[in-house]
Amino acid sequence: MASRNKTAQASIESMYRVFTVPEAPQSTLGQVDEYISRNLAGFLQEHIVAVEKDLNEVEKDFSDSTIPEKPIFVSEQAQFLLDKLVAQSVHTAAPSFIGHMTSALPHFMLPLSKIMIALNQNLVKTETSKAFTPLERQVIGMLHRLVFQEDKAFYRRWMHDPFHALGSMCSGGTVANLSALWVARNLAFPAEANFRGVNREGLFRALQYYGYQGAAVLVSERGHYSLRKAADILGIGHDYIIPIATNRENKIDVDALRTECIRLRSEKIKILSIVGIAGTTETGNVDPLDEMAEVAREFGAQFHVDAAWGGPTLFSRKYAPILKGIEKADSVTIDAHKQLYVPMGCGLVLFKNPASVNAIEHHAQYIIRKGSKDLGSTTLEGSRPGMAMLIHSGLRIIGRDGYEILIDLGIDKAKAYARMIEAHPNFELITEPELNILTYRYRPDYAAEALKIADDEHRKKINIMLGRITKYIQKSQRERGKAFVSRTRLNPRQYEGDPCVVFRVVLANPLTTEKILTSILDEQVEIASEKGISDEFQALQKACARVMSASKSQQVAASRS
Amino acid sequence: MASRNKTAQASIESMYRVFTVPEAPQSTLGQVDEYISRNLAGFLQEHIVAVEKDLNEVEKDFSDSTIPEKPIFVSEQAQFLLDKLVAQSVHTAAPSFIGHMTSALPHFMLPLSKIMIALNQNLVKTETSKAFTPLERQVIGMLHRLVFQEDKAFYRRWMHDPFHALGSMCSGGTVANLSALWVARNLAFPAEANFRGVNREGLFRALQYYGYQGAAVLVSERGHYSLRKAADILGIGHDYIIPIATNRENKIDVDALRTECIRLRSEKIKILSIVGIAGTTETGNVDPLDEMAEVAREFGAQFHVDAAWGGPTLFSRKYAPILKGIEKADSVTIDAHKQLYVPMGCGLVLFKNPASVNAIEHHAQYIIRKGSKDLGSTTLEGSRPGMAMLIHSGLRIIGRDGYEILIDLGIDKAKAYARMIEAHPNFELITEPELNILTYRYRPDYAAEALKIADDEHRKKINIMLGRITKYIQKSQRERGKAFVSRTRLNPRQYEGDPCVVFRVVLANPLTTEKILTSILDEQVEIASEKGISDEFQALQKACARVMSASKSQQVAASRS
Repeated sequence: MASRNKTAQASIESMYRVFTVPEAPQSTLGQVDEYISRNLAGFLQEHIVAVEKDLNEVEKDFSDSTIPEKPIFVSEQAQFLLDKLVAQSVHTAAPSFIGHMTSALPHFMLPLSKIMIALNQNLVKTETSKAFTPLERQVIGMLHRLVFQEDKAFYRRWMHDPFHALGSMCSGGTVANLSALWVARNLAFPAEANFRGVNREGLFRALQYYGYQGAAVLVSERGHYSLRKAADILGIGHDYIIPIATNRENKIDVDALRTECIRLRSEKIKILSIVGIAGTTETGNVDPLDEMAEVAREFGAQFHVDAAWGGPTLFSRKYAPILKGIEKADSVTIDAHKQLYVPMGCGLVLFKNPASVNAIEHHAQYIIRKGSKDLGSTTLEGSRPGMAMLIHSGLRIIGRDGYEILIDLGIDKAKAYARMIEAHPNFELITEPELNILTYRYRPDYAAEALKIADDEHRKKINIMLGRITKYIQKSQRERGKAFVSRTRLNPRQYEGDPCVVFRVVLANPLTTEKILTSILDEQVEIASEKGISDEFQALQKACARVMSASKSQQVAASRS
Repeated sequence: MASRNKTAQASIESMYRVFTVPEAPQSTLGQVDEYISRNLAGFLQEHIVAVEKDLNEVEKDFSDSTIPEKPIFVSEQAQFLLDKLVAQSVHTAAPSFIGHMTSALPHFMLPLSKIMIALNQNLVKTETSKAFTPLERQVIGMLHRLVFQEDKAFYRRWMHDPFHALGSMCSGGTVANLSALWVARNLAFPAEANFRGVNREGLFRALQYYGYQGAAVLVSERGHYSLRKAADILGIGHDYIIPIATNRENKIDVDALRTECIRLRSEKIKILSIVGIAGTTETGNVDPLDEMAEVAREFGAQFHVDAAWGGPTLFSRKYAPILKGIEKADSVTIDAHKQLYVPMGCGLVLFKNPASVNAIEHHAQYIIRKGSKDLGSTTLEGSRPGMAMLIHSGLRIIGRDGYEILIDLGIDKAKAYARMIEAHPNFELITEPELNILTYRYRPDYAAEALKIADDEHRKKINIMLGRITKYIQKSQRERGKAFVSRTRLNPRQYEGDPCVVFRVVLANPLTTEKILTSILDEQVEIASEKGISDEFQALQKACARVMSASKSQQVAASRS
């Protein structure tokens, strides 16, 4: 019994130690820390995207569902993480990782993040965040000014006003878009007379009271899937995210938008919001925001701009004009973990009108009381970390100047890559980069010839074959692990809307050189000559030959007749 | 022109450098890193909650709304953050900070967090997270097992199944509760015949199709405000969060719950979910989950348990029985940044049935394709950081054993504090701790006497006066900065539901000693003798004296008659 008590006491002591600040840097924890740093630096200096290992294999290291009874040493866990997790993670910072919007981090984010983690503030209320609260309001103010360009007096008046907010921070673009549509929905059905507002009585009674048959959000067919998700969550139903056709440049067709608005109005469907995109996820195009703002005003809808990706383009004097009209938006989504280069889990939505967020205000007795400066009363989330300090650091250490360089480098590089693709006999540029995103596919020159003259049936067939080849190349390249481009499916106008599988490239890492881009194309050509895909190529050649010979015999027949 | 080009080139070079891994630990960034570490260790070793400085003063350092044009040095920003932000933040890890659920972190979380930040994985899809995906599924599996205790075979079958999920990770309890109610709503109104489901057609058509007049969620009056927020977001309307009365122990009155269910049914209001609380935010009480599960089954509602705070009580063999019935829940919220002691921004919702999350599934062309292992198809959020690795580390380094100690220490300490309060002439325990949370208030013994015999009017008056005094003490103590307890307003049964302002204490930091608790009470007594509150005390004394003398003369009159 005495010895059992002794063991128990020892366990308790060890729990105290876990929470006690290690005094000496030579402590075990200090050593683990240093070991991790060295190992991470080594990992990050490698230019390999991922070591190929099947996910089913990797799963074996994470298959035990029991919580271990006894504690293990920190050093043991650190070693486990380095061997099994880090070694099998994706090197999103590698300059040859150009497939997704998750890019490299500026290295100063690492030591500064330590401040955030160690202080473990909770931004929901000033009692657990103090100076982080005005800091967050400042960051929101700075970005509001970047977008809406109000004057100094405006920010002096509103930035720190406890009854208003210029925006709302959150974990990312999805929650930002959801928050914007939440505001739009609540502003559309406010309290009046004997209706207490949609926030209190719900959507069923709101539509009954205001005499509508439904509520809709309009966005181009290139809209992010988070909007469908948001419509589901908000009780609108995602069939009421009305996709509007785009033109050849993947920009919304404003005439089609207006036609659809008229139809909805005649069907007594309330238009909550018209959403413009500043940087579509798949092709990086920007909608004609200026014209959309007008349509929104015409139909009494909120105008939201999803600039999760493209927002920071405003830093660039050269390319900011592409986003003309964004300043007319009622709300704008920007993802900080994308082109503001802060670590994962940070986005925000800005509201032109400081009173907009009052439509989604919530209070509680023990915190976020009315009139407090607590940020929690107007955010979708409750407890939240102090990520704002990393945006603040980015804005100061990189500066507008630095962000401009990053934006310009990315867009110019995308244009250069587009020219490389166009000059190459085996590739076809599918979407021209407007920002730093482009798509292309594998398409040998003989297929180009055939596609030019093929009838509907054969064109479709060849496009399917090219899709299989592009998909094969994309997967193989990912498995090889030296580089990564992503893939998606588009319906390009030049092929009458045939579904086409394409490579998708996002150029946001300043360390990605043209030499790296060349080697990515070279590897894709190399993969195309692999045995695994040779049957597909034979079939493609045959199909193309058939088209060519059919056309030739038609010409012969035509010349004879 | 040449020199301008030179400047431009230098700026570009400096942006390259920002993204390049520093090779030597003696680099400038290495030095900044070390400086931050030393400074943070110093800060964390101090046992002061906050340096008093008015928030309006602090705001001055965060008042500029312009984004600086030119970059500044990392060292300059680090110094700014240490001087202006860290120095003015709240020391949530101080053992005398016992006011909120944001507590100390185990120190091993710091070096391990560095891995998470440096790798910058995005858990939305395996292409940007690889091994982090099975790791997250494992963590969800482990916690699912802690709650639902299915057998090994169950977890072998479901944990890594790409078409199912045992839960959904998110930024915190609010999103977890929202996700659970979203699932409940979508399961209540599924697709059938010529209705495409509430997710597609929205709530208006869903209620029409299924013939309901509304949809409701039932929870005790102690429910967290995030449920009201969720009901607003989901289009249910927060008036349809039906608050059920609680008994003296702040637990839901099950009879009242059943009565309300019957009423709603008769009014054709669909009961989406009945929510049990395992650890109310204000008083830490646990609802009778077992009985609630039965009511939920009876009325065909989902049974959700909000165990954001209390979930980890399941680690304790001694106290786990308090949560009996949680294993019958359809979904359970747990906050990892609370009693799993991981850094801010991490919660999850677990689903008993691995198919439940299919009700909120979303897909896209370029990621989270159907059948992939991508976690993003069943989370509310899109891009998300790899916080799961920190839960994983906590579960292994602290172990079930260690978490049990932490839970037991907290609850036992709360009970000890309650006895100290009860023994003290100037304080009144308002809610007895069931878990590690309690409430009390300042109430001198003469007020206790008066309250016993006062009539309604005087009782209310005295309670208001005691409220002002308690509020004053709480604010002064926070301003002094040595310790922090929070405050809230309750309506205790012992005072016929009079609103009472109370101190609220959360005991989750193992380094909080009984000595610290004593000194917190001592300081509160000291503040009570301050000049600033002496008028209130005089008024209180007068009021109490009036009650006593009125009672005496009544007694005299009674004895005479």
